[in-house]
Amino acid sequence: MEPLKVGICGLGTVAQGVLKVLAGNRAGITRRAGREIRVVAVASRRAKPEVDLGDCVFSTDVRALAASDDIDVLVELIGGEDTALELVQTALANGTAVVTGNKAVIALHGNELLPLAVAHHAHLGFEAAVAGSIPIIANLTHSLVADELQWLAGIINGTSNFILSAMCERGESFADALTQAQTLGYAEADPSFDVEGIDAAHKLTILTALAFDTGFNFGDIYTEGISRLTVEDIEYARQLGYRIKHLGLARRRSDGIEARVHPTLVPNNHLLANIDGAMNAVLVNSNAAGDTLYSGAGAGQLPTASAVVADLVDVARGTARLPVPNSDAQTSILPIEAITSAYYLRIPSLDRPGVFARVATILSERNISIEAAIQREQARVQPRMSSDVGNASDKAWVPIVILTHTVRELVMNDALEAVQALPDVVGDIMRIRVEHFPAASA
Amino acid sequence: MEPLKVGICGLGTVAQGVLKVLAGNRAGITRRAGREIRVVAVASRRAKPEVDLGDCVFSTDVRALAASDDIDVLVELIGGEDTALELVQTALANGTAVVTGNKAVIALHGNELLPLAVAHHAHLGFEAAVAGSIPIIANLTHSLVADELQWLAGIINGTSNFILSAMCERGESFADALTQAQTLGYAEADPSFDVEGIDAAHKLTILTALAFDTGFNFGDIYTEGISRLTVEDIEYARQLGYRIKHLGLARRRSDGIEARVHPTLVPNNHLLANIDGAMNAVLVNSNAAGDTLYSGAGAGQLPTASAVVADLVDVARGTARLPVPNSDAQTSILPIEAITSAYYLRIPSLDRPGVFARVATILSERNISIEAAIQREQARVQPRMSSDVGNASDKAWVPIVILTHTVRELVMNDALEAVQALPDVVGDIMRIRVEHFPAASA
Repeated sequence: MEPLKVGICGLGTVAQGVLKVLAGNRAGITRRAGREIRVVAVASRRAKPEVDLGDCVFSTDVRALAASDDIDVLVELIGGEDTALELVQTALANGTAVVTGNKAVIALHGNELLPLAVAHHAHLGFEAAVAGSIPIIANLTHSLVADELQWLAGIINGTSNFILSAMCERGESFADALTQAQTLGYAEADPSFDVEGIDAAHKLTILTALAFDTGFNFGDIYTEGISRLTVEDIEYARQLGYRIKHLGLARRRSDGIEARVHPTLVPNNHLLANIDGAMNAVLVNSNAAGDTLYSGAGAGQLPTASAVVADLVDVARGTARLPVPNSDAQTSILPIEAITSAYYLRIPSLDRPGVFARVATILSERNISIEAAIQREQARVQPRMSSDVGNASDKAWVPIVILTHTVRELVMNDALEAVQALPDVVGDIMRIRVEHFPAASA
Repeated sequence: MEPLKVGICGLGTVAQGVLKVLAGNRAGITRRAGREIRVVAVASRRAKPEVDLGDCVFSTDVRALAASDDIDVLVELIGGEDTALELVQTALANGTAVVTGNKAVIALHGNELLPLAVAHHAHLGFEAAVAGSIPIIANLTHSLVADELQWLAGIINGTSNFILSAMCERGESFADALTQAQTLGYAEADPSFDVEGIDAAHKLTILTALAFDTGFNFGDIYTEGISRLTVEDIEYARQLGYRIKHLGLARRRSDGIEARVHPTLVPNNHLLANIDGAMNAVLVNSNAAGDTLYSGAGAGQLPTASAVVADLVDVARGTARLPVPNSDAQTSILPIEAITSAYYLRIPSLDRPGVFARVATILSERNISIEAAIQREQARVQPRMSSDVGNASDKAWVPIVILTHTVRELVMNDALEAVQALPDVVGDIMRIRVEHFPAASA
């Protein structure tokens, strides 16, 4: 059989990984693909780096490669958004299959790109765009194809998980843990994409589109990162029996789909609570398979390359199928105010009698039940709360920590507005959502 | 497009689950499959049960259904071995695709059935045969297709894992935990298939064949169940920082493949140590993706049916591909004596001076290093060791518990023979292998 002719745009870490995997595992890949997967051309906007490209043609004209009739598949790995989008569009419009690891392009432009691929009978593979080595796209679109999905929850940003693990295991501050992540190469110099949740929201956009037929609606996903978390929150959560993880959550409801990215208290014996460091994991609940969990390296040269090459094999052997969104019944993503959740609250308050009672009254008036609370005497607490002091206008204060039962976010917002307005409350309230992962959420 | 016409042999729990999933999720399945999946006939050797079969034809002649030209796919769910094998052979020889959940048939006859399927251009799907809802077959043959696998380790028998979890969490004896598993429907009236490791060995045979091109060689897989484990072993393991899990392990070595099923000490912070109850999980290490973990319900009506229907969708949309064994380079499974492992040893010994020294000398003479040991004074130990007393010829005894470093099994066998022959040793030595899951085992 003819080789599958591949052109790669980009020659960064992942692209070099693709070359390594194709070369290192050539015999097995060829056998399983039923034919050779041959990289015939590589284009990179930068000058040719010190990479052995063997026989394949190198150029700096990425647009020409995307438009080339001499390739069967374009592998888009230049990153970024605008040029990458243009390359993907060009190739698909030319009937060339595309494999990409670009989560931003898929999350922001999937609604146009999937129909473009369908119209030109060209495959668009993006397994590498979500959670690196974890075959979550294949599992949603292939292995769980008999099921209706009910909810999913994922640790889908390795940088955030690395930082939270360091804060939790070694009591490091957010800033120290971030510096360490940067030193080890887990975080970029400008980490905001990761630590503010944007990267995770891109990935959740893709998962939600595939799982719940919402379309690719990044703008509708509530997004909150981990940069405001303190070591104290992690410690209080631990005392309450939880760990804090940065989750992407999506859930089918009768009136729409919840989809949100935020720090979350997870019961400490739950599998997701024990996914540490730069690992990713996605837990899926569906109406026949029940709970299934997929875990692995969320990033990295070879894990991401593994997903890219698996997509190429799929194209080579003709088993690639585009996800089939249900265009008849597109469901919309609910606003964050419509969700229901349990909450962790840390309320910096003056250390004087009756404050807890006033807070409890405000919650009670809105039918918000308290599941647990921690209120320490100031003398014992203050030394460990030093990082909070900047919040407070007065040093004679204590944090009131409350875990609530489930309530609508809208009601919680109203309660927090009232609590924040109490003269006893001397700093910003920290509110973190709590997830209990219902076993049966049908 | 024409419907995919399905005939089901068997009308037990899983078959009824397949009917439920196909009916309950009909719209989504049809959309994703690109055409209707229609059960046109059901055959069961027993009289027709009280199940609504709608329009489809019922008969008691399973052989006739397997040979029928009116079906595109035979779903074999009668269980057992001989008749099931005959049905699968009949259908494949007739060019009819087969989907089965029968691990025994695939493990024992895969070497003939795969070539038969290839020869007649008929698909043979068996996702449901291993680990219920977990798409481990798809992940090995599809998502990890770019990788060379290095090792895998799985909790692949839910009954054994349920029993071990009960022994570990609640201190129950093996017998009590088994009775409980039987009451809850997790274990059969005759549990030997599960608790002696046969079922897990069938599954590991299939995984090893797909991962390491060994062919389906059930007879070469070392198999040991959990029925000899005591609560004391679980407690000593816990003190040493481990949990005992029943694992299927396979590993590529330069001289062959290790493949074995046995109770195993797993570090207690490892993900596999925390897969509890009837859950299954498979951890795979491959040379590009690194470690990936897949977890979910290992059995049950709907989880297993989910896997069966996913295989049907694969056939319906033409994306099903048979695994491609590497017939040029079949590798053989090494005998258990050739493995290397660390070991947990519990040696029932007379409570007199010098016993530990004599045991340590025997190990030392064979270059077996001791990593940790527990030796309690009799007075403190005896009340908790009551279940061991039957082993010993004398009541004045103590268990010596030793954790060794890695050594060849052959050397350990020799050492244990010498230790067992010591006059101080008053009962059978318990030996359990220890797994440390090397991060890099290339």
